[in-house]
Amino acid sequence: MSDTAHPPIVLLTDFGLQDGYVGVMKGVIAGIAPGVPVIDLSHEIPAQDIPSAAFLLETSWSYFPERSLFLAVVDPGVGSSRRGLGVRSHARFFIGPDNGILSGALDVDSEIRSIENAKLWLAEVSKTFHGRDIFAPVAAALAAGTPFEQIGPLISDPIRREAPPPTHTSAGLVGQIVYVDRFGNLVTNFPPELLRDGETWAALTPDGAEWPFRGTYADTAPGERCAVVGGFRRIELSINRGSAAQVSGLGIGSAVLLRATSQ
Amino acid sequence: MSDTAHPPIVLLTDFGLQDGYVGVMKGVIAGIAPGVPVIDLSHEIPAQDIPSAAFLLETSWSYFPERSLFLAVVDPGVGSSRRGLGVRSHARFFIGPDNGILSGALDVDSEIRSIENAKLWLAEVSKTFHGRDIFAPVAAALAAGTPFEQIGPLISDPIRREAPPPTHTSAGLVGQIVYVDRFGNLVTNFPPELLRDGETWAALTPDGAEWPFRGTYADTAPGERCAVVGGFRRIELSINRGSAAQVSGLGIGSAVLLRATSQ
Amino acid sequence: MSDTAHPPIVLLTDFGLQDGYVGVMKGVIAGIAPGVPVIDLSHEIPAQDIPSAAFLLETSWSYFPERSLFLAVVDPGVGSSRRGLGVRSHARFFIGPDNGILSGALDVDSEIRSIENAKLWLAEVSKTFHGRDIFAPVAAALAAGTPFEQIGPLISDPIRREAPPPTHTSAGLVGQIVYVDRFGNLVTNFPPELLRDGETWAALTPDGAEWPFRGTYADTAPGERCAVVGGFRRIELSINRGSAAQVSGLGIGSAVLLRATSQ
Repeated sequence: MSDTAHPPIVLLTDFGLQDGYVGVMKGVIAGIAPGVPVIDLSHEIPAQDIPSAAFLLETSWSYFPERSLFLAVVDPGVGSSRRGLGVRSHARFFIGPDNGILSGALDVDSEIRSIENAKLWLAEVSKTFHGRDIFAPVAAALAAGTPFEQIGPLISDPIRREAPPPTHTSAGLVGQIVYVDRFGNLVTNFPPELLRDGETWAALTPDGAEWPFRGTYADTAPGERCAVVGGFRRIELSINRGSAAQVSGLGIGSAVLLRATSQ
Repeated sequence: MSDTAHPPIVLLTDFGLQDGYVGVMKGVIAGIAPGVPVIDLSHEIPAQDIPSAAFLLETSWSYFPERSLFLAVVDPGVGSSRRGLGVRSHARFFIGPDNGILSGALDVDSEIRSIENAKLWLAEVSKTFHGRDIFAPVAAALAAGTPFEQIGPLISDPIRREAPPPTHTSAGLVGQIVYVDRFGNLVTNFPPELLRDGETWAALTPDGAEWPFRGTYADTAPGERCAVVGGFRRIELSINRGSAAQVSGLGIGSAVLLRATSQ
Repeated sequence: MSDTAHPPIVLLTDFGLQDGYVGVMKGVIAGIAPGVPVIDLSHEIPAQDIPSAAFLLETSWSYFPERSLFLAVVDPGVGSSRRGLGVRSHARFFIGPDNGILSGALDVDSEIRSIENAKLWLAEVSKTFHGRDIFAPVAAALAAGTPFEQIGPLISDPIRREAPPPTHTSAGLVGQIVYVDRFGNLVTNFPPELLRDGETWAALTPDGAEWPFRGTYADTAPGERCAVVGGFRRIELSINRGSAAQVSGLGIGSAVLLRATSQ
């Protein structure tokens, strides 16, 4: 361990691990910023699924140390006129295409720049792999000490994609499913702070099912529906040892009603 | 390369790589123990399959340098009253839930502690993700120099889950299948030392099949059954370019008879 | 970041990530060459698919810094008499079995050695896992400073497996498909330099389909066929949001005709 160790570069893509794309990005980084650790957040985002990537970034960045540098590339518009963005926010850096993937990193104080300084890119830039040719070299340059303002000019109109926050109605709180994990758990946009102590809560979904709130998976029987505060710090709908997504037919965008069932 | 490089933290979970859980654990580690390398042993353990994780840990730890620190989290009881364990054994450290996953690391000299010192954990501890909130911070604290005794008090009654060793019978040695790899190879609990030189061996399984011993895969024809000493240093039953598990219908727990067929 | 950081060891195998084989190789490396970073190029090469591994190595090595050390293990002949090779080429090192996997790293100036110095291997060498017992220790020894000539004697007859380069015919350029990525994109052996400016190009395949050249995926409609210069710096045949391999029935070895359709 070293006190002078560099904060990590954190990668988030839909490239998968089979075809070497991620490895090549790490090769580019190793050439420009040798010794900087690289951490994989996920490379198994469903192809072109920007909302799922944005959700993972939004719920994960705070667990990484300050000065970490996030490189998020889900990029269906690669090679078109879409901009690339660099964001300084929450004492961390975020790099990626301007398509909403960085939405969860933006706040009112964010410094947002358009990536335009080609001196920081690979000499040859393809039209199909900016993760390797533009974003990785820019991230590595920042990690190696290039001042943030050198990546390009300030902008103020990044594309934002945010699920609307839960709303209060007479029936209860109305939110939605914003992510489905690989076990089929249905992750909502309800933060756990909504669950006031001393009340009993349940979630209701459009298929007519009720998901009673439980403290943890171990409190349910196999096959039983429940709502728990999951690993993303959001309320999620789960079926013990089953796939809630498959059983319910629900998915991203489905409405969820949260209400107190008693006091 | 550096002579002062820190031994690695080695991760073993059933979290998969899709949902960012592993990446977030690495973020927590990077914040507490910057510069300590992290190695993935596997994150594709079948969900909640403690025996398979215990087998991988048991057969792998000796290939890592002394002072390596293993963080093994397959944790169906997360959020319940199950303890967390830290083990000093074989000149290495092992961290994980008290459910048998660390069995293969225990020996008569092991120092076993219950993880109870919450000062080493994240400030907010969830009921569903102790890998991130408790186990990763404790492992990182140890890697960063926290004395082992500070994680919690000594205990002497860890849960153990060990397949019984092979037994001698008049028909031959009786063992069992303890792991199935992704190619469908059936890994037994027979160590290679059982194969005395100068004898010809075969394995027999309850489906009536015989698996003649071969030195290596290259000695068999496609589709042919064989028994070989595989990568885990155990005798395994294999079908060249096929899935032994699928063809035979055998799996973890199936009995295997090993006998000398001639001299 | 450190100016004295060691170039990475880059791993390429068909071992998958489930069974811990790759993690154990990294453990061996960490014991011999502590502090040397390890990068995964891919471990999801289809089992025993040497041509696909050779293609990834050939198209990837130049993106890694000089003195990087590539460890490529797709090894159906493990335990037989096949040699192991170490290659110094392109200011980098390449280690792997002598079965053609390193073909794309060889050039006229390559220094090629047969791995024979058992002092650099693990004390116990299995017949089924030379990646762990021979190749990883040799790679780590080189990374730790062992002179290259100590791994074994010079040889001049490595096995080569190279797809023939595209040939000119009266109908156009004839090449072939050399790799299929996980999205079903069909990667050819046509380098982008073949596409002269000012001409319009299309690819034709034996199923009668025509694949018009486009600058980028974003220029096509969903379901539309196109040819693009993909991430491997080769022309590839693609169907927007579909699998070109599945729709066309084409695969590795299928012929592709490239011709200018107008000026």
